[in-house]
Amino acid sequence: MALATAQPKTTLDFGPAVALSCRECGTRYDLGPTFACVECFGPLEVAYSWNSPGFTGPSPVTRRQIESGPANIWRYRGLLPVPADVLSKPNLAPGWTKLVKADNLARELGIRSLHVKDDSGNPTHSFKDRVVAIALEAARNFGFHTLSCSSTGNLAGAVGAAAARAGLDSCVFIPSNLEEAKITMASVYGGRLVGIEGTYDEVNRFCSELIGDPLGDKWGFVNVNLRPYYGEGSKTLSYEIAEQLGWRIPDQIVVPVASGSQLTKIDKGFKELIRLGLVDDKPYKIFGAQAEGCSPVSAAFKAGHDIVQPVKPDTIAKSLAIGNPADGPYVLDIARRTGGAVEDVTDAEVVDAILLLARTEGIFAETAGGVTVGVLRKLVANGLLDPAAETVVLNTGDGLKTLDAVSAEARPTAVIRPSLDAFRAAVADNS
Amino acid sequence: MALATAQPKTTLDFGPAVALSCRECGTRYDLGPTFACVECFGPLEVAYSWNSPGFTGPSPVTRRQIESGPANIWRYRGLLPVPADVLSKPNLAPGWTKLVKADNLARELGIRSLHVKDDSGNPTHSFKDRVVAIALEAARNFGFHTLSCSSTGNLAGAVGAAAARAGLDSCVFIPSNLEEAKITMASVYGGRLVGIEGTYDEVNRFCSELIGDPLGDKWGFVNVNLRPYYGEGSKTLSYEIAEQLGWRIPDQIVVPVASGSQLTKIDKGFKELIRLGLVDDKPYKIFGAQAEGCSPVSAAFKAGHDIVQPVKPDTIAKSLAIGNPADGPYVLDIARRTGGAVEDVTDAEVVDAILLLARTEGIFAETAGGVTVGVLRKLVANGLLDPAAETVVLNTGDGLKTLDAVSAEARPTAVIRPSLDAFRAAVADNS
Repeated sequence: MALATAQPKTTLDFGPAVALSCRECGTRYDLGPTFACVECFGPLEVAYSWNSPGFTGPSPVTRRQIESGPANIWRYRGLLPVPADVLSKPNLAPGWTKLVKADNLARELGIRSLHVKDDSGNPTHSFKDRVVAIALEAARNFGFHTLSCSSTGNLAGAVGAAAARAGLDSCVFIPSNLEEAKITMASVYGGRLVGIEGTYDEVNRFCSELIGDPLGDKWGFVNVNLRPYYGEGSKTLSYEIAEQLGWRIPDQIVVPVASGSQLTKIDKGFKELIRLGLVDDKPYKIFGAQAEGCSPVSAAFKAGHDIVQPVKPDTIAKSLAIGNPADGPYVLDIARRTGGAVEDVTDAEVVDAILLLARTEGIFAETAGGVTVGVLRKLVANGLLDPAAETVVLNTGDGLKTLDAVSAEARPTAVIRPSLDAFRAAVADNS
Repeated sequence: MALATAQPKTTLDFGPAVALSCRECGTRYDLGPTFACVECFGPLEVAYSWNSPGFTGPSPVTRRQIESGPANIWRYRGLLPVPADVLSKPNLAPGWTKLVKADNLARELGIRSLHVKDDSGNPTHSFKDRVVAIALEAARNFGFHTLSCSSTGNLAGAVGAAAARAGLDSCVFIPSNLEEAKITMASVYGGRLVGIEGTYDEVNRFCSELIGDPLGDKWGFVNVNLRPYYGEGSKTLSYEIAEQLGWRIPDQIVVPVASGSQLTKIDKGFKELIRLGLVDDKPYKIFGAQAEGCSPVSAAFKAGHDIVQPVKPDTIAKSLAIGNPADGPYVLDIARRTGGAVEDVTDAEVVDAILLLARTEGIFAETAGGVTVGVLRKLVANGLLDPAAETVVLNTGDGLKTLDAVSAEARPTAVIRPSLDAFRAAVADNS
C-alpha cells in the first residue's frame, strides 16, 4: 500500500471501507483526503473488503438488517465509508426518497412498467444531499473544520445546509453571475458564499489552487479532495431503487450525465448488490441523458469514440452543464458494456418533458429531470430502449429551483373578474 | 341522523369514519360533500366509532400495525376517513416527514429538548399535501371529476399535483396579482389555473357561488365542500410526531395559525391517540403562532376575548394571511384549555427566525416557519413556554417558495476575482 497524505490511521473510522484504489491502475492508498493516483493520475475510489479478489462473502449486512434501519441513506451504512455511529451525529439524513410508480407517464410513453426515482424529496431538494452527507463524514474523520465546494446551485445549498446542521463552517464558491434565486438559497444557511467573477471552470480552478494554499488548510472540498467519499453517496440511489422494487435490479435505468460520476456509481451500486448476494444477478442497461447544448458524452457515444471532446455548455439544464466531464469515458464504457446508450435532447424537449412529468405524475422536476424524461421518450421513439422491460428514470432535482425554464409555458388558463358569467365565458373560450 | 346531500351510502367507503358531526351542536349527518350544520351553521367534522360516548376500545389499529405500514400518512389509514385500499390508488403519498432533533437551535434558544417537524419534505413541499390527499379520497368517493380550491400558493400546487397524479381534472382559483413564482408552480401540473381580479376573500366568495352553480357540479373544493375530510389530514402531524418521539406526546408544541384548522386538528389527533390507548395520557400545551400583520387570534387571546375580530392582513407571511380565521374561537379555546398561548411576531422577527433556523439546523423554512420559530423564541423570552419541557415546533412550508422574504439578508459574503490574493483580502475584510 502506498503512503498517502492521510491523518494517522488510528483516528479514522470509515466503517467497511478499507482503502482508496485507483480506478485506472488499481494502486491502493490509505484512506485520506486525496483524489488522484500519484502513479497514473487516475481517479481514486473507495475500496471495501468485498472488492478483494478473494472475497466469497458473506455480505456484511443482510436485507433484514437494512430493512430495519432508518428511512434515510444510513440504512445502508454497512455499505458506505462512514462510521457505525453515523446515526448519532447531526446531519441532514437524506435519501429514502420515493420510487413513484408512474403508470400515467408509462401510458403516454408506451412503456409497460415505469418508475420515477424522485430525489426532489431530499432535504435541500436535490440528490446532492446524498453525496454531501458522505463527504461530511469524511470531513469529520479528517478533522476538517470547513466544508467547501464549487457549485452552480444544487451543491451550494446542500453543502451550506449540511455544514450548518453539523456545526462546521462552510465556504462555497459560485460564479458571481448566478441567478438571484440560487444566490439567496445558497446564502441562507449562514456560511460564507463567495462569488467569483468568472465562469464555472474558473471557479473550479480557483478551488484547486486554494486546496494547495495554507488558506485552505483543514478544508474539505466535497467535490475535490473528498471526491472519492462524496461519489459513494450516489450508490445509495441503486440500493434504494433495488430495495424499493422488492430487492430487484430494474432492466434499464435512465440517469443524467453531468460529470458522469453519478452514472458510474449507480453501476457500482448495482454490481455491489449482486456481488454481496443482496439481489439476484441479472443483466441491466444503463442509459445516460444529456442536454443537446452540453452533450459531449452523447456525441462521443454516437461517434463511437472512447474519449470525450470538451464543449462550451449552452443549455437551460445548468445543473448538467459540465463541458469537460471527468467521468465521461467511464460513462461511455458502462453504456456500451450494459447495452445502454447515451442520448441528448434539445432545451425545448427538456421543457416539454418537465411539463409532461408534472401533468402525468404531479412531480415538478428541475431541468435535469426534464433531460432524463425527455431522453427516455426519445429512446423509446428511436428503439434504443425496450418499452416492454422494467424501466426506472431519475429525477435528481426540484422544479422550484429552475422556474424560469417553464415560466413562459406554465401560465394561468384565464384571468377573470370574480363572477360566474365571466367564468362561463372563460370556460367556453377554453373548451 | 339527519339527511344530507350525500350520494347513495352503499357506494361510499370512508374506512373507520361513520358520520359527519357538528362541532357546535353535535347533530350528526351521513358522510357527504357538506361542511356546515343545517341546524346551527356550525362546522362539520368527521366522526369515528371511537367518538361514541360508549366507546371502550380496543383501538382499531395497534402500534405494531402502524409501524409496519408505509413511510407516508397511509400508515395511519385505520384512523383516517379513507378506504382500506387507499394504498393501491395513485396519490402523492405525503407525510412521514422528518422530526429533526434540533440541538443547535435548542442551545441558541435556551431550550432543553427541541424538535422541528419539517413538512417542507412533502411532495409539493408544504403540509397541504396531507390535507389534499384526504380530500382527494373524498372526491373519489363522491364521484367528483374535478378537484378545486381557492389558494394563495401552497394549496394551489398541492391540488394541481394531486389531481394530475390521480387522473382528475383540476381548477384552482387564485388572486391574479400573485407572485410570478407561485403562478408558475401552480400552473405546471396542467390543470386549469384561473386568476381572479380581486382579493383572496373575493376568490373565496366566488368559489362559494360556484359550488351552488351547475358549472361547479361534481367539483370537489378541497377547502369548502370537502373541508371536513380535508381537515382530518392535519391529524397525521400529531400521529407522526407522537410515533417519532417513541409513542409519546410532547409537552408543548408551537403551531402556525391561518384559519386555525391545523391547530384544532393537531389537538384532535393527540386526543385520539390518548383515547385509543396508543400513547399514555398526559397534559400537553398547544401554542398558536401568527404574524403581527395578521394576528386577530393572538390579539383576541391577549385581550381575553372569546371571539376574533377580523383584520386586513399585511404581512410577508402570506400563507398565514387569513384575516377572518374560521377556527379562531376554537384555537382560543384550545390554547387556554391546554395552558398554551397565542403569540405573534413582526415581519422582521420572521426573517430573523428563518435565518436562525437555516443557520442552526440547515432547514430553509418559508415565512410560516419563520413565524413559528420566531414565536417560539418570543415565548421563551416572555416566560410563557417552559424551556425545560419537551418542545416541538412546526415548519409547514419551504423557503424556496418565499425567497423574497430573505433575499435582502441572504447575500454573498464577497464577490472577488478568481485569485488567492483577492480571496485573502476578502477573508481579511470579513474576519
